[in-house]
Amino acid sequence: MKKLAVVAFGGNALLRSGQKGTYQEQLQNVEQTCESLCNLIKRGYDVVIGHGNGPQVGNVMLQHEAGKKQFGIQSMPMDFCVAETQGSIAYMIEMGMHNVFSRNDINKNIVTLLTQVEVAHDDPMFANPTKPVGPYYSKEEADRLAAETGAKYKEDPKGNGWRKVVASPKPLRISNIDIVKQLAEQGNVVITVGGGGIPVMFENNHIKGLEAVIDKDLASALCAVQIGADEFYILTDVPKVYINFRKENEKALDVITVAEAKQYLAEGQFAEGSMAPKVRAAIMFIENGGESCIITEAGQLDNPTCGTRIVK
Amino acid sequence: MKKLAVVAFGGNALLRSGQKGTYQEQLQNVEQTCESLCNLIKRGYDVVIGHGNGPQVGNVMLQHEAGKKQFGIQSMPMDFCVAETQGSIAYMIEMGMHNVFSRNDINKNIVTLLTQVEVAHDDPMFANPTKPVGPYYSKEEADRLAAETGAKYKEDPKGNGWRKVVASPKPLRISNIDIVKQLAEQGNVVITVGGGGIPVMFENNHIKGLEAVIDKDLASALCAVQIGADEFYILTDVPKVYINFRKENEKALDVITVAEAKQYLAEGQFAEGSMAPKVRAAIMFIENGGESCIITEAGQLDNPTCGTRIVK
Repeated sequence: MKKLAVVAFGGNALLRSGQKGTYQEQLQNVEQTCESLCNLIKRGYDVVIGHGNGPQVGNVMLQHEAGKKQFGIQSMPMDFCVAETQGSIAYMIEMGMHNVFSRNDINKNIVTLLTQVEVAHDDPMFANPTKPVGPYYSKEEADRLAAETGAKYKEDPKGNGWRKVVASPKPLRISNIDIVKQLAEQGNVVITVGGGGIPVMFENNHIKGLEAVIDKDLASALCAVQIGADEFYILTDVPKVYINFRKENEKALDVITVAEAKQYLAEGQFAEGSMAPKVRAAIMFIENGGESCIITEAGQLDNPTCGTRIVK
Repeated sequence: MKKLAVVAFGGNALLRSGQKGTYQEQLQNVEQTCESLCNLIKRGYDVVIGHGNGPQVGNVMLQHEAGKKQFGIQSMPMDFCVAETQGSIAYMIEMGMHNVFSRNDINKNIVTLLTQVEVAHDDPMFANPTKPVGPYYSKEEADRLAAETGAKYKEDPKGNGWRKVVASPKPLRISNIDIVKQLAEQGNVVITVGGGGIPVMFENNHIKGLEAVIDKDLASALCAVQIGADEFYILTDVPKVYINFRKENEKALDVITVAEAKQYLAEGQFAEGSMAPKVRAAIMFIENGGESCIITEAGQLDNPTCGTRIVK
């Protein structure tokens, strides 16, 4: 019996800091990640890929801003920008995966579904938007834009200017999730919930796109729950999860229970905006019926006992 | 027995000339087109949608250019830009279609597949690129870019400057076409071959993205052939195809055979860059086993005898 795994990785698997971000660099980066994912497939897993889009959607928003200034092209809201990155990032992953499969004599389709993710009207995060996105503005510009659009702007703590802040509401429902499950179980590699999904809500049964950012690990966890995945992999830039991280009593974790994970979270062992949301996504998966969630780096996927395993 | 139809329409169904191109305008435009498509569904068809991206991919290329100048963001080649537009345009169509279904009490999934379309290394069009794309440059800039990248640039006949010209090779193979067929036959509305598809070729079994534009009507015709569609609809801005168009002996065509269509093409009855490629796509569909191809405007789709019908 084949096992079904959802694997989530960040948009920085393609656009790495310290590089220029050329097309060739992105292709090389994504092929490297796909080589690692291929190890899971060789180990007999059906695989669904959820990916982030942090650096990419940031660039798209800047490109819209610049295109408006230079050419008068209307700039579009975040939902539209996320949709653009779902196309471009998945295309690069499709290429990388195809090329790796070709070198490894693996014959599988790689299929990308555009994905909307529904959130609640009354998600408490809307009252307190914290995710900075898009270009930096002067205080005057930010005030004008806030008045025009109703968006909130906050001053960047590093002094680069003012930036729009958006909410990060909880993902509730993933579009076409039954089709994701069907295609994955048929043995296709499926790419979905790109960038955490295009953020939408429903008003009178009509779709309304949102200026929001859905956490890609949480959206991927929801996907893993809803397709009944056996395992959920969250890829990051360290081989394991640590307590007392970067202190002299630092300790790598091999297997922890949900109760232990919650305890460590309560102690503040995991950094917000980094390991903490990953551990929360892991807990969400296990509490909703998942078998185990593995947090590790891509390069470890050839090892069946890699990473930190969160279990019930 | 349900009939399967492929419907192709242009990117200008969303971004219309004479409008500003705001998000709200695009949504209204696409909902109007989706209302029309819904008539086909009410008439009992399973529907696959192929759409163009002319105005959209032009904007994306300008946004990349402006983003490079203002923010130093790497600009990406056409295959990447087409992938971006597949995401954004399909998202708008998904929204429009959902909203129309909701008002009409229709319960169907709308599924978008990212689509690569393979062309031949030795397609004769590569020797003679003619499709102008992207920003206008001065002669000096164009010469420098041509030397740097190997791309060809031509002077705009209207005197706006120099522009890159790319080839429009023939579509040969559509990625994941079996899945398009499977999902459409299950009753899902499938959106595919956006912008004619992301143009790729294979070198040593590795995917290579291309600076090229694939005709969306021809790519949609290939899709229609390969999924065994009964009918192929090409939407345009006139209710029928005409001979002696805009002359005093102008005549609307109701039903024509492939032989007649070829004769009219040979006589130069149909404008290049406008009706001629549509008629060629229709011929391609019928010569490869299709039943009938209908060329008409969206607003006519409630009428079963609408448009010009090209048959064997």
